[in-house]
Amino acid sequence: MAESVVAQKVEQLQVNGAKEEDEDLVTPWEVTTTKATGIDYDKLIVKFGCRKLDDDIIARFERITGHKAIPMLRRGMFFAHRDFSAILDRKEQGKPFYLYTGRGASSGSLHLGHLVPFIFTKWLQEVFDVPLIIQMTDDEKFLWKDMKVDDAKKMARENMKDIISVGFDASKTFIFNDFDYMCPPFYENIVKIWKVVNANQARSIFGFTPEDCMGKAAFPAVEAAPCFASSFPHIFGAKGKKNDIPCLIPCAIDQDPYFRMCRDVAPRLKASKPSLIFSTFLPALQGAQTKMSASEPNTCIFLDDTAKQIKNKINKYAFSGGQQTLEEHRAKGGNCDVDISYQFLRFFLDDDEKLEEIRVKYTKGELLSGELKALAIEEVQKIVGVMAERRKTVTDATVDEFTKIRPLAFEY
Amino acid sequence: MAESVVAQKVEQLQVNGAKEEDEDLVTPWEVTTTKATGIDYDKLIVKFGCRKLDDDIIARFERITGHKAIPMLRRGMFFAHRDFSAILDRKEQGKPFYLYTGRGASSGSLHLGHLVPFIFTKWLQEVFDVPLIIQMTDDEKFLWKDMKVDDAKKMARENMKDIISVGFDASKTFIFNDFDYMCPPFYENIVKIWKVVNANQARSIFGFTPEDCMGKAAFPAVEAAPCFASSFPHIFGAKGKKNDIPCLIPCAIDQDPYFRMCRDVAPRLKASKPSLIFSTFLPALQGAQTKMSASEPNTCIFLDDTAKQIKNKINKYAFSGGQQTLEEHRAKGGNCDVDISYQFLRFFLDDDEKLEEIRVKYTKGELLSGELKALAIEEVQKIVGVMAERRKTVTDATVDEFTKIRPLAFEY
Repeated sequence: MAESVVAQKVEQLQVNGAKEEDEDLVTPWEVTTTKATGIDYDKLIVKFGCRKLDDDIIARFERITGHKAIPMLRRGMFFAHRDFSAILDRKEQGKPFYLYTGRGASSGSLHLGHLVPFIFTKWLQEVFDVPLIIQMTDDEKFLWKDMKVDDAKKMARENMKDIISVGFDASKTFIFNDFDYMCPPFYENIVKIWKVVNANQARSIFGFTPEDCMGKAAFPAVEAAPCFASSFPHIFGAKGKKNDIPCLIPCAIDQDPYFRMCRDVAPRLKASKPSLIFSTFLPALQGAQTKMSASEPNTCIFLDDTAKQIKNKINKYAFSGGQQTLEEHRAKGGNCDVDISYQFLRFFLDDDEKLEEIRVKYTKGELLSGELKALAIEEVQKIVGVMAERRKTVTDATVDEFTKIRPLAFEY
Repeated sequence: MAESVVAQKVEQLQVNGAKEEDEDLVTPWEVTTTKATGIDYDKLIVKFGCRKLDDDIIARFERITGHKAIPMLRRGMFFAHRDFSAILDRKEQGKPFYLYTGRGASSGSLHLGHLVPFIFTKWLQEVFDVPLIIQMTDDEKFLWKDMKVDDAKKMARENMKDIISVGFDASKTFIFNDFDYMCPPFYENIVKIWKVVNANQARSIFGFTPEDCMGKAAFPAVEAAPCFASSFPHIFGAKGKKNDIPCLIPCAIDQDPYFRMCRDVAPRLKASKPSLIFSTFLPALQGAQTKMSASEPNTCIFLDDTAKQIKNKINKYAFSGGQQTLEEHRAKGGNCDVDISYQFLRFFLDDDEKLEEIRVKYTKGELLSGELKALAIEEVQKIVGVMAERRKTVTDATVDEFTKIRPLAFEY
C-alpha cells in the first residue's frame, strides 16, 4: 500500500515535470524546495512558460494607472504574468475587464500567506476600479479532504469573513462559494470546458491518477469557469454577449495549471483568455523551504493572532540569517536572503530607503537579529492589527451583502 | 488514426464485457445484436446482475395495487428489475417513494421507442399515485454530440412537449433539463457521488478512455443524482432529511450502468438505493436486431407521423415473419418471434385473447402478413393518434408549468 502510494507520487511528479533531483515542487497541492532561499522562481517561469514581470511592464503599469506600485509588486513578490500587457492595454483604452481570484478554505482562520494575494488584489481593484470576483472552492476541499459538505461550506463562509477584513468594497465585489452559487450560467461554462479537455490532457496538466476520484478530474473546470464573464450574468448582463470581457487573475503561481488549461480552451469557447499575475509564496516562519501552512500553526501568523502572539512567534520561530554569537554577527554580518524577518519586511514595509538601510546594516552586522525581528514584528502587527480590527465588525450580514446575487456598481 | 479508434472500441467492448463472438452489445450508447429475435434478455439479466421480473412479483404488484398489469408489464417487455419488491413493500406500508426517469434528447420529434418507457411510467404513476421526476440530459447530448448548448436545450424543450403529450399530470410531475435546473442541492449530490467513485471504476462501468473528454467522466453523477430526493427540496422538503425517500426508475436496460453505480454509492451517501424496472427495446421496423433510431427515420414511427405515414411505413418497412408466397405462407405459416407487426401488437394490444388468436392464426398461415400489418397499423395509429392530438395542445406555457420550481401535489 505505502509503496503504491509512493510510486503514484513519483509518477505524479514525473507527469507534472515538477521535481527532479534538487528541483522545486510546485503544484496546486504542494509547494516545497530544498533551498533556504526558497523556490527558484526564475526557473519556474521557464518551466511554466509564463513571463517575468519586469521593470518595463511595472513602469508602464505606473504610467497608465498613475499609481506607484506597492512593495510586493515593485520588489518582485508578484514576479510573473501571462498577458498582463493586454489588461494594461484595456485600461489605457478604457475597455472593461474584471479581477478574479479565489481561495480553497481548509482552515478556520486565514494566515498571512493566504492574505497576501488578497491584500494585493484589494490594492489592484482600487487602482483599476473594476469588479472583483472571489471564488471559494468549498467543493474542491470536500473532494480533496476528509471533510463533510456542510463543514466545507461553513469553513468557506468563515474564511470569507477574514477575506472581507482585508477591506474590500461590497458594492464592487462578489464573493461566492461553489456549493451555494452553482447555477445554470456557471454550469454551462463548466460543461463547455469539460467538452474540450480530455482525460489525458487533464492528467498531464494536473497529474491525476486512475485512483483519484471522478470529482478531481471534474473540478478544474469549476475553477476555470469564473474566467468567463458569462458565468456571472447578474454582474455582466445577459449571457452570450459578455465573454469578450476578460479577467485578470492575481494568484500564487501554484494555481497556474488551472488557468493554463483555461487559456488553452478559451478560443474554442469564443471567450477572452484570462490574464494572470503571479505571486511568490510568503515563506513559513521556519524558512523559505516551504510556505506558511495552516495545518502547522507554528509556521504561520494567523489573522486572529494577538499582537503578543505575533511577537512571540516571530521571536521564537522566525528563521534568522544572523550568526550564532554576537561577536560573530558583528564580524561577519547577517544574510538577508534567508532571514524570514527581512523577507516579511520586503513584503510589507513601504519605505524603500528604510528597507535598504536595514539590509545594509544587517548585512554588515550593525543590526542584530533581535533588532531585525523587532522591526518585522512591528510591521506585521500593524498589517494584522488593521485587518483584525476590521474583522470584529464583519458579521454574517456582511457576508450576505458580498454573496448576494446582484449587479455591482458598474454598468455593462 | 482509424486503427487506434478501432483498438479503442475493441478495448471499450472488452471493458464493458458487452460483446464477444455472437454476443449482444448493450451500452448507454449502442444497442445491437446479430439475432433476428433480438437481444437475448435472459443473458443480459445474468450479465448485468439484475433480476427477472417474474410472474410472482407481477402478481404481488397486482394484489397490492389492485390494478391489472398492462401488456408491456404482463408480457415481459418490462422484464427485469432491481429491488422492485422494496418499492412494493413501501406501497403496501403506505411509505413515500417517487418515480424518476429521463431522456437524452437527440432528435426533434420522439419516436415510439422513446415513448415506451414514458407510456409505462404514466401508467405506473397513476397506479402508485406518487411524484414523478423526468430528467432531460441536454448536457449529456452536448458532451457526446457535435451540438451547441442552445441547440441541446432547445431539443430538450421540444422533446418535453412530446413527453407531456403522453398524458402526464402537471400537479404531480416535475420535468427539468440539466442546463436549466442546475442548482446547489442537485450539485451537492453530484459532488458527493464524484467523491466516492474513482476514474478506474468509472472506466470499468462505462468504458471511458483517456481520449474521452473530461465531461464524459463527470456526467454519470449528473444522471445518478436525481436518485436522491434531496436533489429536489422544492418537492421533498428541506435538504438532508429526505434521502430516505427512495425512487423507482422505469427505464430501458441500457441505462443500468448509471444506476448500478448509483446503488453502489448510495449507502456511502447515507441515501436509499434506487429501485429499477427495466424495459426491452421496441424493435426497429426492419427487425429486432436493433432498436428504433431517430437518426434513421425509416426505422421509426414518429409521434408526428400522420396516420397515412404510419400505414405506409409499416406496410413498406415492417419486417415480416411470413413466407415469400401466399401458397408457402398458407402451407408453412408465419413466424411471430421475428415479425415486427406482431411485436408491436404485443407491446400495445390490450386484449390477450385477441393477441393469442392472432398468434395462432398467423403461425398456422391462416392470417396473412398484409392482414397482420393492418392490425398493427390500426393499433399503432390509435396509440400515436391520441398522443398526437394531445401534442397539439401542448405549448411553451404547458412546458413552463411542468418545469416550474414548485411543490407537487404531495406533502412530505
